[in-house]
Amino acid sequence: MENPFLVDVARGTLIESRHRGSVAVVDSEGATVLSLGDVERRVFPRSAVKALQAMPLVESGIADKYGLTDEEIALACASHSGEPEHVAAAKSMLKKAGQDAGCLECGVHWPMGEAANRALAAKGQGPSALHNNCSGKHAGFVCLACGQGNDPKGYVRADHPVQQAVRESLEELTGACHTLDKSGIDGCSIPTYAVRLPSLAFGFARFGTGAGLSGEGRAAAERIRKAVAKHPFMVAGTGRFDTKLMERLGERAFVKVGAEGVYCASLPELGYGIALKAEDGNSRAAEAMMAGLILRFLPLSDEERSTVEALAQPVLKNWNGIEVGRVQLDPLLLGQSA
Amino acid sequence: MENPFLVDVARGTLIESRHRGSVAVVDSEGATVLSLGDVERRVFPRSAVKALQAMPLVESGIADKYGLTDEEIALACASHSGEPEHVAAAKSMLKKAGQDAGCLECGVHWPMGEAANRALAAKGQGPSALHNNCSGKHAGFVCLACGQGNDPKGYVRADHPVQQAVRESLEELTGACHTLDKSGIDGCSIPTYAVRLPSLAFGFARFGTGAGLSGEGRAAAERIRKAVAKHPFMVAGTGRFDTKLMERLGERAFVKVGAEGVYCASLPELGYGIALKAEDGNSRAAEAMMAGLILRFLPLSDEERSTVEALAQPVLKNWNGIEVGRVQLDPLLLGQSA
Repeated sequence: MENPFLVDVARGTLIESRHRGSVAVVDSEGATVLSLGDVERRVFPRSAVKALQAMPLVESGIADKYGLTDEEIALACASHSGEPEHVAAAKSMLKKAGQDAGCLECGVHWPMGEAANRALAAKGQGPSALHNNCSGKHAGFVCLACGQGNDPKGYVRADHPVQQAVRESLEELTGACHTLDKSGIDGCSIPTYAVRLPSLAFGFARFGTGAGLSGEGRAAAERIRKAVAKHPFMVAGTGRFDTKLMERLGERAFVKVGAEGVYCASLPELGYGIALKAEDGNSRAAEAMMAGLILRFLPLSDEERSTVEALAQPVLKNWNGIEVGRVQLDPLLLGQSA
Repeated sequence: MENPFLVDVARGTLIESRHRGSVAVVDSEGATVLSLGDVERRVFPRSAVKALQAMPLVESGIADKYGLTDEEIALACASHSGEPEHVAAAKSMLKKAGQDAGCLECGVHWPMGEAANRALAAKGQGPSALHNNCSGKHAGFVCLACGQGNDPKGYVRADHPVQQAVRESLEELTGACHTLDKSGIDGCSIPTYAVRLPSLAFGFARFGTGAGLSGEGRAAAERIRKAVAKHPFMVAGTGRFDTKLMERLGERAFVKVGAEGVYCASLPELGYGIALKAEDGNSRAAEAMMAGLILRFLPLSDEERSTVEALAQPVLKNWNGIEVGRVQLDPLLLGQSA
C-alpha cells in the first residue's frame, strides 16, 4: 500500500515539497480508530518510545529508591536540547546512583539546542556525554542497572539486564515481539526494534490509560505522564515542539518525537494511542502530522487550539522575517472532505 | 505521474526511510537523456541556479571592471558555510564596489558551518549579513548594481534592474518563462521562479558547454566554471558535498545544491545538464541522487569513483562511531536492472 500525501510545504502560490506518511490511532483495546497509509510496514520507533523504555526504572521502585525527582523522571524520557538544566539533572541522576558521566555509553555530541551549543562554545568548553540528547535516558539506565545490583558497564548491549528489562517492557506494552533479527542500533547505541505502527499506538494507548497493565505498571505510567506534564521543558527544551505542546495541554496529551519522522502520543481522556511516521524521515512533516491529529481528535479550548494550530501549519519566514510560505496539512489527515 | 523511490535509508537489515524524486538529464540541444518521475511539475530552483544568476555580473564586464578574483566569482555562486574565508571574500567584493555589509539585503543568520558557528560564538561575536550563506551572491548583486550605475538599494526586488538582468539571464539560458505569478520569495529575499526540471537541466547543459550562447555569454560561463573548479571551497565549505565533489572532479562536473532537495549540474565533456528534486525537499536524498547520476554518466578513474561512491551511498555512523546504516540508491537511478 502506498503512503498518501499528508503534508505539503507551500512557497508563494505553489507547493514546493510534499511529505507522505502513515498513521495508526488505536484505542486501549487495540481497535483501529484511524489508519492511513502502509501501517503494516515495520518502523524503528527510535526515541519516540523513551517513556516506555523508562517504565522498568519506575515500575521496579528503583526511581523511588534513588529519590529521583519529577524533573529527573521527565529527563529519563527526553530527547533534550543539552541546556544547562538538562545537563544538571542528568548529572544528579547519576550521582544518586553513585556514578558519574564516565559510565554513560551514549556517545558525545554538541547540544542539539543552538543557543546551548553556542553558549558552551562561548565558555571555551566542549560537550560531554551529559550533553547528548539521550543522556537522561541513559542516566536512567545506569540507575536501573545499579538498582538491580548489576554492573552498569555494557548497559547498551541487548544482552545486558537493563536492555532485557527494556525489551520486556516494550513487548508487554505494545503486545509486539521485539526481536534482534528486526532490530538496528540507535544513535545512542542501544537496540531499536522495528514494529508495526498499530503496535506502537497500542502501547501508547495503554501507557496513557493503564489499561491491561499491572498495578505497578499502571502507577508507573501515571507517574511518568504526570512528571512530563509538570516539566515539559525537561523532555525537549526551549522552543521545541514537545515542550510547547505539553506546556499548553498538560496531562491531556503525552507526545514524544523520534528520529526519522516518527512520533508517538497518548490522549488519555480518549483512551487513544497514536503512532505515525513520515515516509522520508522528515521531522517537520511528523510534527505537523502529530499536531494535526490532536486537532482532529481532542476537543480544545480556543487557547489550546491556537497553540496546536500554529504547530500544525506553521508559517515559514525567511532571514528577513518575510513570510515566504507555510506547512499545510492534507484534508485526509484532518478528516475533512478535500 | 508519481515520483519513484530513488533513495533508501537503511538501518540494520531494514529500510528506515525512503525518498522519492524526479530527475531530468538533457543535452545542450534540450534532448532528453534521462527522465524519471514527474518532471513536468514546476520546482523552485532556489540556490541551485546561483551560477546562472551570476552570469550578468561576469558577462557585463562588471566583474572585471571591479577586478573580482576567481575566489570572489566562485563566492558569487556560493551557498557558503560562513567560514572566515567566505566572509572575507564577500567583504572584499563589496569594498571593490565602494560599498560595505550595510547594503546587503539577504538578512542575517549564524554560519551554516558548525565549526564556524561555534568559533564565532567563542569569540563573543554574533553574525552579520556577511555570514549569510548567500552573502557572496548578494555582494555580486551589489557589484552589478553599482557597475550598472544604479543605486543598489532594493536590489532584491523583482523590479530592480539587478533582478531584471538576473531574470533575463535565467530565461535566456533555460529557455523557460520566469514569471512573477509562478514565483516565490527565497530565503535571502530575492524572487525564485518555478520552472520545469528539463528547462533547468537545459540551462545547465548550455552553461556547461556554451552552446547557444553569445560570445560574451560563453566566455562568462567558462570563467565562472573555471573559477569554481579552481576554488570549490568558496562555493560551499569544509566537508560539504559540492566542495568535496569538485575538489575531486575539477572542471569535469559543476554541481550546485539548492534548498528543498534541488540539485543542478553541468557535465561539460558530455554536454549534459542535470536537474533533480527530492519530492520531500530532503538534501541527503538530493545529494545521493546527484552523486548517483554522476556515477551513472561520467566515466571515472578509480580515485574519482571512490570519492563519488562515498558521496552517493554514505555509511551512517552513530555518536559512538558505530556503523548503523547506509544511504542506498535505487537501481532505477543508477540505470541498473533491479
